[in-house]
Amino acid sequence: MHITPEVTVAEFGERALIARIHNYLPYAQPSVIVGVGDDGAVVEQDRGMVTVITTDAAVEDIHFTQNSVPPHDIGYKALAMNLSDLAAMGSTPKYALLSLMLPSGLSVISLDEILKGFASLGNRYSVSLIGGNVTQSSGPLIIDITAIGSVHKRRILQRNGAQPGDCLYLSGSIGGAAAGLEIINKMKVSHGSDTYDTCRQRYLRPEPRVRLGTLLGRNRVARSCIDLSDGLIAAISQLSSSSGVGAALDAPTIPIEPGALKWFKNQGVDPMQAALSHSDDYELLFTVSSKKRRSLEAIRRLNKDIHITRIGTITKNREITLKSGNQEIPLPVGYEHFRQQ
Amino acid sequence: MHITPEVTVAEFGERALIARIHNYLPYAQPSVIVGVGDDGAVVEQDRGMVTVITTDAAVEDIHFTQNSVPPHDIGYKALAMNLSDLAAMGSTPKYALLSLMLPSGLSVISLDEILKGFASLGNRYSVSLIGGNVTQSSGPLIIDITAIGSVHKRRILQRNGAQPGDCLYLSGSIGGAAAGLEIINKMKVSHGSDTYDTCRQRYLRPEPRVRLGTLLGRNRVARSCIDLSDGLIAAISQLSSSSGVGAALDAPTIPIEPGALKWFKNQGVDPMQAALSHSDDYELLFTVSSKKRRSLEAIRRLNKDIHITRIGTITKNREITLKSGNQEIPLPVGYEHFRQQ
Repeated sequence: MHITPEVTVAEFGERALIARIHNYLPYAQPSVIVGVGDDGAVVEQDRGMVTVITTDAAVEDIHFTQNSVPPHDIGYKALAMNLSDLAAMGSTPKYALLSLMLPSGLSVISLDEILKGFASLGNRYSVSLIGGNVTQSSGPLIIDITAIGSVHKRRILQRNGAQPGDCLYLSGSIGGAAAGLEIINKMKVSHGSDTYDTCRQRYLRPEPRVRLGTLLGRNRVARSCIDLSDGLIAAISQLSSSSGVGAALDAPTIPIEPGALKWFKNQGVDPMQAALSHSDDYELLFTVSSKKRRSLEAIRRLNKDIHITRIGTITKNREITLKSGNQEIPLPVGYEHFRQQ
Repeated sequence: MHITPEVTVAEFGERALIARIHNYLPYAQPSVIVGVGDDGAVVEQDRGMVTVITTDAAVEDIHFTQNSVPPHDIGYKALAMNLSDLAAMGSTPKYALLSLMLPSGLSVISLDEILKGFASLGNRYSVSLIGGNVTQSSGPLIIDITAIGSVHKRRILQRNGAQPGDCLYLSGSIGGAAAGLEIINKMKVSHGSDTYDTCRQRYLRPEPRVRLGTLLGRNRVARSCIDLSDGLIAAISQLSSSSGVGAALDAPTIPIEPGALKWFKNQGVDPMQAALSHSDDYELLFTVSSKKRRSLEAIRRLNKDIHITRIGTITKNREITLKSGNQEIPLPVGYEHFRQQ
């Protein structure tokens, strides 16, 4: 069949669509004993290693719209969200299962782009597709992914290990994704190389901190770790409550993406408020004890392209405070999915 | 909050819904190192064992309607479909991840019922919920599950191991689920104990053949195995093409569910045609070499509640034929999801 932009997935059978998926996903880890094509996949774990499993879905109209996000980036980002979770556990990604719910009017060319986006990230991290499911959706386009990683049993990072006195660190910067989404929606013409392009990329193609996560698990440099999918405030709240501690954030040190700083100021919005409470920055937030500071310096040297910033301290007092000079600014509430505003 | 039938999931935040899910899923396997509540779950594999992973989704309007299937059975069946895939690989189910896409108008009571249905089957097989995701859906209700099982490396069942001369066996009966769906839709009043009740149950609450699957893997009694989710014809086609063989089915031996036989006859439909081509019977189709027939007899004695019927023979000739006396009946095409009819 000649594929024109008018050809929809409804004109393909399930098996033809699955065959199409396989074209983009040729890589198989040696540990895959049975791959795609049976009732289930079979994988083998290396001795001493344990398996990390996470799942996250990208749902049209809830997490993205087809107007704002090109199909390639829908596929890329759905996998990135999951790899970010694996990174926060200190694990190396190994396999993924891809569950697609496709509106019958979706063009086959869009599906191909989604798969190319998924594969572009998957191949970079040698992630093998070991299973999945293709079904029609009477409503939104949904990409639901289960990602599976591997980690040495003594190198697992959890969110519940923070202790009073630990320094609190953040990778990269925040606010970029939130600004990027607004920029995409409000400035229809993209100039590619303008000052806002980094923000657009932060929203559309976030970089999961896979290497950093595994390094933080080695020698147990980080005592606790969480990813920032739901925003910094949500992350620090969850890390603190899991660990039974509080945190004092030092506002001037919190790295806001420069384009986001400019964008929010121009919109008359407080950039700190916006950057703290919005989601979609897939950075790692982690704590390091004073004994491990030198190990962290070694990791910094190995990861020169990722800024690691100390943004506060873990406290015994279970409150979370944001200090700016002598002021203690009350924290905005973290973004929570689903509840009607 | 007092939960009346009018209270919808949209009035709950994501965390409140997740807390609700935890109420129904208290069981945790000892091999779960990190359970629900972190960025990912961490599980440990026993030595010599390998991990089987499968995923399948139940999508409203495609696989079920809320008019035909009570919420309890939606949750039950979504898990049953996945456990059936694990059984077909010879594995014991251990964990599940539950990804829910909920229309905002869904009542919290319906959600509770879905969870109770899921848990009723999960608890019977000691399946630990180790992760998941709750998100709003702008369209259909979707329950997407990833199920994970464990099997000894030498006991994996695959669909590609059939060899000419193997006997072909089927567990249980077919046609019941297809008749059950029609009965539910056409006979609004259910009489509970009438002759059609088995068919309704076969559609609403299929029994995954978990124990049979693991027994067939021990001592490698079955040389190949597949489950029947897409119907008998689809299953025998896939098993044969994976194995590079054909099959001769013996029509009079194929066990059609008695209620389905009666129902299809009353509807003026050929019961064999209907039973062969329809999906949703979660039985196992498997092949056994002549050397292993006695081992199969032992399994029969251990599984007296499940009929195991020889329905044909694997052939070198790669065609699939259905023999009835001296006639060779042409096979109807197996059900394939997604393609527009």
